[in-house]
Amino acid sequence: MFSTTTTRALPRSASAKPLHLCASCRRTNSSFSTSSPADTQPLRTVFSGIQPTGIPHLGNYLGALKPWVQLQNESNPRDRLLFSIVDLHAITVKQDPLLLRQWRREMFATFLAIGLDPNRSILFAQSEVPQHAEMMWLLSCFASMGYLSRMTQWKSKMSLPDNASPFDLSPESSKKKDTPALKLGLFSYPVLQAADILLYRTTHVPVGEDQAQHLEFTRELAQVFNSAYKTTIMQTPQTMLSPAKRIMSLTDPRKKMSKSDSKPQSRIMITDTKEEIQTKISKAVTDSIPGVSYDPQLRPGVSNLIEILYHLSPGNCPSPDQMANELLGTDTSPKELKGLVADAIDKELAPVRERMNEVMSKSEADIGKLLVPGIDKARGIAMPHIMKMKQEMGLWW
Amino acid sequence: MFSTTTTRALPRSASAKPLHLCASCRRTNSSFSTSSPADTQPLRTVFSGIQPTGIPHLGNYLGALKPWVQLQNESNPRDRLLFSIVDLHAITVKQDPLLLRQWRREMFATFLAIGLDPNRSILFAQSEVPQHAEMMWLLSCFASMGYLSRMTQWKSKMSLPDNASPFDLSPESSKKKDTPALKLGLFSYPVLQAADILLYRTTHVPVGEDQAQHLEFTRELAQVFNSAYKTTIMQTPQTMLSPAKRIMSLTDPRKKMSKSDSKPQSRIMITDTKEEIQTKISKAVTDSIPGVSYDPQLRPGVSNLIEILYHLSPGNCPSPDQMANELLGTDTSPKELKGLVADAIDKELAPVRERMNEVMSKSEADIGKLLVPGIDKARGIAMPHIMKMKQEMGLWW
Repeated sequence: MFSTTTTRALPRSASAKPLHLCASCRRTNSSFSTSSPADTQPLRTVFSGIQPTGIPHLGNYLGALKPWVQLQNESNPRDRLLFSIVDLHAITVKQDPLLLRQWRREMFATFLAIGLDPNRSILFAQSEVPQHAEMMWLLSCFASMGYLSRMTQWKSKMSLPDNASPFDLSPESSKKKDTPALKLGLFSYPVLQAADILLYRTTHVPVGEDQAQHLEFTRELAQVFNSAYKTTIMQTPQTMLSPAKRIMSLTDPRKKMSKSDSKPQSRIMITDTKEEIQTKISKAVTDSIPGVSYDPQLRPGVSNLIEILYHLSPGNCPSPDQMANELLGTDTSPKELKGLVADAIDKELAPVRERMNEVMSKSEADIGKLLVPGIDKARGIAMPHIMKMKQEMGLWW
Repeated sequence: MFSTTTTRALPRSASAKPLHLCASCRRTNSSFSTSSPADTQPLRTVFSGIQPTGIPHLGNYLGALKPWVQLQNESNPRDRLLFSIVDLHAITVKQDPLLLRQWRREMFATFLAIGLDPNRSILFAQSEVPQHAEMMWLLSCFASMGYLSRMTQWKSKMSLPDNASPFDLSPESSKKKDTPALKLGLFSYPVLQAADILLYRTTHVPVGEDQAQHLEFTRELAQVFNSAYKTTIMQTPQTMLSPAKRIMSLTDPRKKMSKSDSKPQSRIMITDTKEEIQTKISKAVTDSIPGVSYDPQLRPGVSNLIEILYHLSPGNCPSPDQMANELLGTDTSPKELKGLVADAIDKELAPVRERMNEVMSKSEADIGKLLVPGIDKARGIAMPHIMKMKQEMGLWW
């Protein structure tokens, strides 16, 4: 998962207007302008993506999705916001096609359910905009193999040490007989991620700390392109580092809350009923120390509950620590804390759950209709930018 | 350069018709059918591509382009023929954008000039059909890094030994301080080449021997995809191995005729005038042995002229060797041979030259109009196939 934003788009370098022949563009040229007047340019462009992993749990919601809604609701109306289901990234590891299809639908329903507004934000799936893959190929011609081999994400996805080489993994290699062969898609996906960001001339990217390396790579690719063609068409994005929200498992609070945990009671799903929330929270692992205090090392279970309550009570306290000391304190028992947490979660999720059920009860055709404007808007931004890139590169008549 | 053909398309595996939301497809759905009746399916599909390197010389013409025209003119009307300017491959090495643009135009003019008929064959530039890059990404997720690292073409393009590793080439590597860093595009372009072929369900690929390795890779990717999704949508292409036509330099007949040779008199361009052809051929390096005989080792210059004459006189003789013995023999002097060769070249190229000048004298807009039908037709085949692939993979609503 990652995300991004953009300041005012730089003016395109002056040059003769080229003949434009792309078959699909000819059809849609009328629907957007490649040279908007300055007052219609976005102030910032934010792009963020999330892989389709089905209905999110509370950790995904608080860590990744709710901040998008806040960003949307607090942004300047002239900011351009794009939130994408990055399904082309999902296929870099093996996926069950039926599940992937379901997860895409559930993720889109989640977008609507949590309050992302398709009239304000551009909501779409990456695979519906062919320019992501086109941009990926164009950038491939500038991305060095050495740099990619040193990136760590493909290694962590394959559970390999940071010093692993891509070619230890060929089936013939005696070193890793049990490891499946590394595929080009997984190795090269930082370039697709750079394409996602650069395609919309993104100015700001809301990222977690683990994504900082990839954003640096994106910035470098933008600069390499601009320098190679003496142009300014590629926007170098800035990071919007978001404070980490580590929501932990309810059954083993030293591990992150995870969809892949075998115990369903380890996580709250955003569609859980009030009763399910109460049951799961009441059974959450805590400790036998009396009262409530915030100490993730010593009291991971209690601290996790405080952390959840803190994120659901914005503005009440500047930190979970202070919340524990000032609002809860030693007078509150872990059981009382659980009651407060379960109520807060239910209060937060009740409208989400309701809208989610509403969207998921629609027919495929009706969900489809909701998707179309986002796809059209994303393509309407991506196409002229790819055209400009191609023009710079000489891929033009 | 490479090329391909396809037998009758296999029927798509039965499944519920999915909801189709791709923004551009919605606009063009009416212009093609994803389930044509059997009698409109092509018997074979041939795909071949050539990089845009500007006006071709005689070696390109005889080796690569004229066989396409022959294929077109001799094919069954129900064969589908696609000839593409593979400009996305061209950018895997550094290109001057202005030159690349000019070369694309010149290559397209060449297509028309040599007799490729846009009403019979589908003529287009690869970069105008975004599905090439989309397919490339989808296939990336099945292509193993180990396999790609053993392919030899990136090594030969970088003048490296066949046992070179991609990571000897990072800027930090002490081994190759003078070698530019290997880029992902050059390393991964066999996957794009596979995408070019598989995108049109190509059944036969006219290839030179140096491309056999890449076609094997393409076949393997098709099989891996079909096996992963228990489908038959990917067509495994067959090779159409074309006899090698090695046209050598006129000034150094031990080297291939090449555009990059510093001596313009080393090559005949397809736009050369009659006088230029006569002058270049009359100055061609031969030897002092009397008479004419075919022996590429001992008499490379004379043998090259015989080879050219042989390829321009189809049907006269079964081999250059027999042509030398039976039609020319020891009574013919090298000078007389040169006269025959210059006449034969001019006879072949005069109409090509004339059409080339005619096309190149048109305005950009008029050349553009000639391009549109090919782009539309290529997209009309590529789009439904990519849709089917995405459906198999779960990238579908």
